[in-house]
Amino acid sequence: MECMATLGLIEYSDASPEVRAVYDDIMATRRTDWINNFWKAMAHDPATLRRTWESIKQIMAPGALDAVTKEMIYLAVSVTNGCTYCIASHGAAARKKGLTPEQHAELVAIIGLANETNRHAAALDLQIDEQFR
Amino acid sequence: MECMATLGLIEYSDASPEVRAVYDDIMATRRTDWINNFWKAMAHDPATLRRTWESIKQIMAPGALDAVTKEMIYLAVSVTNGCTYCIASHGAAARKKGLTPEQHAELVAIIGLANETNRHAAALDLQIDEQFR
Amino acid sequence: MECMATLGLIEYSDASPEVRAVYDDIMATRRTDWINNFWKAMAHDPATLRRTWESIKQIMAPGALDAVTKEMIYLAVSVTNGCTYCIASHGAAARKKGLTPEQHAELVAIIGLANETNRHAAALDLQIDEQFR
Amino acid sequence: MECMATLGLIEYSDASPEVRAVYDDIMATRRTDWINNFWKAMAHDPATLRRTWESIKQIMAPGALDAVTKEMIYLAVSVTNGCTYCIASHGAAARKKGLTPEQHAELVAIIGLANETNRHAAALDLQIDEQFR
Amino acid sequence: MECMATLGLIEYSDASPEVRAVYDDIMATRRTDWINNFWKAMAHDPATLRRTWESIKQIMAPGALDAVTKEMIYLAVSVTNGCTYCIASHGAAARKKGLTPEQHAELVAIIGLANETNRHAAALDLQIDEQFR
Amino acid sequence: MECMATLGLIEYSDASPEVRAVYDDIMATRRTDWINNFWKAMAHDPATLRRTWESIKQIMAPGALDAVTKEMIYLAVSVTNGCTYCIASHGAAARKKGLTPEQHAELVAIIGLANETNRHAAALDLQIDEQFR
Repeated sequence: MECMATLGLIEYSDASPEVRAVYDDIMATRRTDWINNFWKAMAHDPATLRRTWESIKQIMAPGALDAVTKEMIYLAVSVTNGCTYCIASHGAAARKKGLTPEQHAELVAIIGLANETNRHAAALDLQIDEQFR
Repeated sequence: MECMATLGLIEYSDASPEVRAVYDDIMATRRTDWINNFWKAMAHDPATLRRTWESIKQIMAPGALDAVTKEMIYLAVSVTNGCTYCIASHGAAARKKGLTPEQHAELVAIIGLANETNRHAAALDLQIDEQFR
Repeated sequence: MECMATLGLIEYSDASPEVRAVYDDIMATRRTDWINNFWKAMAHDPATLRRTWESIKQIMAPGALDAVTKEMIYLAVSVTNGCTYCIASHGAAARKKGLTPEQHAELVAIIGLANETNRHAAALDLQIDEQFR
Repeated sequence: MECMATLGLIEYSDASPEVRAVYDDIMATRRTDWINNFWKAMAHDPATLRRTWESIKQIMAPGALDAVTKEMIYLAVSVTNGCTYCIASHGAAARKKGLTPEQHAELVAIIGLANETNRHAAALDLQIDEQFR
Repeated sequence: MECMATLGLIEYSDASPEVRAVYDDIMATRRTDWINNFWKAMAHDPATLRRTWESIKQIMAPGALDAVTKEMIYLAVSVTNGCTYCIASHGAAARKKGLTPEQHAELVAIIGLANETNRHAAALDLQIDEQFR
Repeated sequence: MECMATLGLIEYSDASPEVRAVYDDIMATRRTDWINNFWKAMAHDPATLRRTWESIKQIMAPGALDAVTKEMIYLAVSVTNGCTYCIASHGAAARKKGLTPEQHAELVAIIGLANETNRHAAALDLQIDEQFR
């Protein structure tokens, strides 16, 4: 194992049984027949691969919030952090789970607005109102 | 007008007619009888006050996304930016509009997870999969 | 020397000659008779104290840009990063150097706008136009 | 309308009258004969297109601050957020409006310095001096 | 269960058996007799409490990197994000594990420097050198 | 001198004596025979070039912390800021100085974890425990 960023991606055919088990679970859970680069790059570190997948599987499954809402929250964070890969992968996931173009447009508008007013609040050095506590 | 951050807050009784008109619209739209500090501090700049309120009123109104979903997206951005005031004010707004504790807990878990994997993606120097384009 | 964050502040009367020399230069350059907490906390590490002060003195002095413009740029970064201390200290510096309330109001509006459109650009996955290269 | 990020760009010849009206105003205001990708991608959501353009036109027009100063503030935010597209587009705008290479060099130095000292301030857990309040 | 941020903290005496089990493991692992607020606030969501604790316990244990190095990395992230609570809690942890004042001073200098040059790199629109790939 | 971002890179053969002196010192200090793009782009501003190089040379030299530990801290900041160039250049530097793949994997896991819990702390609106002060 060399540096992950330059080692490239571990394909299914080259993966250890431990890694294959995670790949299999990803494909079964998502009902797809391929693995995206995020997992193939992370597979150089099987412990982090497994822990991250287990967290995503648990947290992103429908619960008190539905699956599309969860993907929108994920996208709001990813856009705020400027994570190009994450915007692409979770944008695709959101659409696959049913995000409509109209919802996507409103999502983008809210993300922009919140980033604007967050900075207004910082610049104005606001005290939190009693009513919000 | 001196510096906004140190000028303090403009109360309704001290506000110009232009500012009062915005305050009145905020209270009518939100069905409350008070104005939170964000607007009172911004009122030193009436043009920004009006433009920001008009944007929020338009963007945060129920549309393709419902009001609670919109507040969750707002919170996801505010937490990622670490904006204490925004977390308090939009947390209160979200609960008022119906966010349940179970939904809030899942929201926090997703925000944390997305911030984690955003950095994994950056560290791994990922190329975007063809399937996501 | 213990941890800087908990060691508190090094006052002039307790400072080493090396630290006092920096304090003296700060007060002479700024024409004030006091040292703000940033320097008193950093004084536990005299090498960083001197290097940081030398950089600030050189970079923030009037040059191709005037002193007020430089403070506005400093504030734009500090608000975007949500650095409460920096917003307070450089807000005070900007006003002392002549920032008017009207300029401050426009500064805040631009900072908010740029943070909004930065996220629009990220969300829309834009390619850079040929004309901008 | 499908997802904006993947729908590509709406050219003038394909735009609705509502979108064309904004495009025409952008070109007239900027005295150019082309539209940059930011607007073409946002045009899938005409309401956000119009609101964003109206905000930019109002906020970035010369006022208490001149046009070049406003672009420098915009750039300081965009560099701090790491928004590649915004750095390219507003860098070009700043130069067109008269930013000199010497001013640009000082701008970059201040942005770097402020990001450095913002983190020093966070690491040192500073209390705001009475004199700054 | 109401909103976590306003619900306050769950003390050991009021905790469910599920939460107590995590609290017990935290105290045993860290050889302390108290629980810090991070866990008491998160305890309203036992699933996130357990998962987060298990991740921290696994990731922060000495491995290829020693415990103090791991805490320094944690601090570098927390300072860059401006997370006041995290800087305080992991600063205390780092000192307890052996971080010396001289090491702390160098850590702060590096964090500041990296944030500065990160922005230089963004402003200069750099292409990655072939030698780094 | 025109805009740095579009001016391209200043090669050794085209550099002024002032710039060559810095280039020579970089190559001698690093025992390499080439200069990476960061410096070639910054060379349009010789004062910033010299100051930045002097800071890096001083701060990144082994001291209370060894060279590899310093590069890991640099990487933690760069990943958190999403600075692609910095991740590539300091990733290469870290490996050259001895970072092992196992250490790199743990580094990435810690960076992800800290970014996750930083947001948990923000979302939970935590007060700092007395024990940490």
